[in-house]
Amino acid sequence: MPASTLQRNRCGKSRFRREARAGNSVDEFELIDRFFDRKEKSAGVKLGIGDDGAVLEPSPGFDQVQVVDTMIAGVHFPPDTNPADIAFRAVAVNLSDIAAMGARPRWMTLALTLNNNSEQWLQSFAAGLYEAADPHKLALVGGDTTRADKVTVTVTITGEVERDAALLRSGARVGDTIYVTGTVGDAAAGLALLQGSAHDAFLVSRFLRPPARIATGRALVGKAHAAIDLSDGLAGDLKKMLTASGVGARVEIEKLPLSKAICEQFDDEERKHLALTGGDDYELCFTALPDAVADVPGITAIGEVCDSSNLRFYLHGDIVTVDDSGYRHFQ
Amino acid sequence: MPASTLQRNRCGKSRFRREARAGNSVDEFELIDRFFDRKEKSAGVKLGIGDDGAVLEPSPGFDQVQVVDTMIAGVHFPPDTNPADIAFRAVAVNLSDIAAMGARPRWMTLALTLNNNSEQWLQSFAAGLYEAADPHKLALVGGDTTRADKVTVTVTITGEVERDAALLRSGARVGDTIYVTGTVGDAAAGLALLQGSAHDAFLVSRFLRPPARIATGRALVGKAHAAIDLSDGLAGDLKKMLTASGVGARVEIEKLPLSKAICEQFDDEERKHLALTGGDDYELCFTALPDAVADVPGITAIGEVCDSSNLRFYLHGDIVTVDDSGYRHFQ
Repeated sequence: MPASTLQRNRCGKSRFRREARAGNSVDEFELIDRFFDRKEKSAGVKLGIGDDGAVLEPSPGFDQVQVVDTMIAGVHFPPDTNPADIAFRAVAVNLSDIAAMGARPRWMTLALTLNNNSEQWLQSFAAGLYEAADPHKLALVGGDTTRADKVTVTVTITGEVERDAALLRSGARVGDTIYVTGTVGDAAAGLALLQGSAHDAFLVSRFLRPPARIATGRALVGKAHAAIDLSDGLAGDLKKMLTASGVGARVEIEKLPLSKAICEQFDDEERKHLALTGGDDYELCFTALPDAVADVPGITAIGEVCDSSNLRFYLHGDIVTVDDSGYRHFQ
Repeated sequence: MPASTLQRNRCGKSRFRREARAGNSVDEFELIDRFFDRKEKSAGVKLGIGDDGAVLEPSPGFDQVQVVDTMIAGVHFPPDTNPADIAFRAVAVNLSDIAAMGARPRWMTLALTLNNNSEQWLQSFAAGLYEAADPHKLALVGGDTTRADKVTVTVTITGEVERDAALLRSGARVGDTIYVTGTVGDAAAGLALLQGSAHDAFLVSRFLRPPARIATGRALVGKAHAAIDLSDGLAGDLKKMLTASGVGARVEIEKLPLSKAICEQFDDEERKHLALTGGDDYELCFTALPDAVADVPGITAIGEVCDSSNLRFYLHGDIVTVDDSGYRHFQ
């Protein structure tokens, strides 16, 4: 092969290798060392960041739960979102899946695509990541840093749950009561405010910093029959759980737990719409017998599981239909 | 809050929710069902794709190894790469990290960012994914599908290795022999050809479909003292292993194993340069006592670990220096 051709090829090749190296060699190690690798030992982590892989010690007698979620600037969060909030949210939405399975979080990996972000940006991102992880003793054990046009964050979390005790979507039984944790609709309300002129710190924080209902999920192991986390909106997510379980349900709209803030900022129809169809709440929805969960705090009964294939919504005793554009009286 | 403001906000909100939904709700389930979820049970997978998380059963007596790697179109592979090759490579580079730790692969998650890719594209991608995974009994247990400008693939793999037996970068000992698997430089040669006018099916396949030296990695458990996989080029990666181990080494350039194809397509200086500094080989480099690995096939001794802090390269007995632009006689 003539040297000139190789030269041309080498230049072409360099385009890939140089860009790849910006993410994969020196820069990456510097980034990880400076902002993400905290050196301290975490329980069960025999070897963390720095080798070809992390070495981890699973707990005997436990199953593992693995979850993964990607967030892209301009798709899943406004591009100008505070980096600490981006990181917090990327961890929190994965923790929410772990919670919905009844597991305790153990280890996390981070695949971070950067776009010429500053050191200050990275410092803030790392701070938000640990703010979300630390209360749950969730350790960052590995990662990969790359560069492209849009900031993209993929987090995976491994959790542990007592053998054969994971909470599934498919276990709802006729006669179960349906519960949700916290309040619903706040995150969609917060995102609406974030993109408009009005402001409400509580509602915006409910979008940017969703809760991780790990403690509730753990409390429900052996008690709840089915669980799902609310990412796409109560009506749609509850329907998924019912379908997986082969049952129907009736939900009383007036029982939906609403925050003081959503009641202050939105009128009655708007807040019911947000509560039923607004996404990103990352609360848990689950079914159980009332006696079994009587001592679980922070939960609200909103309906019951029925022997039908339908999910029916009632408002003050009348059937209403719910779709993406809101609810309306049954025609 | 006035309805008009909410309306405006709702429109803004829709931009995020609709795009997010294109990845996160109906479309995603359809995609996963049609192309990725094969329904069959895999060993240790109690619950695969379809709930909030996968439920997995670790093997008693084993440590786990977790690895993660991201590949972006236009950064890590040419944008027009065959989708089956993109998927194969995304899995293979992670398998290579698993191999370098001496582990056997068990479970994989896939975070896939699509860019209006066709059904045909997805079908080909899924086929390539399983082509890479199936020979190693690696099960896909979870995923997240999103949409953005550039195809981005993040794969995580969990493997298992006998307790406290993982191969680390840090275990190289003075007097060890240094080995590599297979042949080196081929992938960089293949990428150069891929971007030029010449062609060689073997070399190109060495870039697009890197080997996963799982069997060799497993054979080295309890025998090798240190190991790393070759992603950034032999000279740089070997240096990382030596630094982690606090030792130096001498490497005989004439001992580097070269393929017949690289010798046919590139002249002597070019192929030595590719073998020493070309990335993406995903072969293993490890140190061991020769007696311990005498029965391990497909490996070549290239040098030895020395009591110094330097990595020195020799060509026919003369010291030469190696950097990104190649090697030259020591000045």
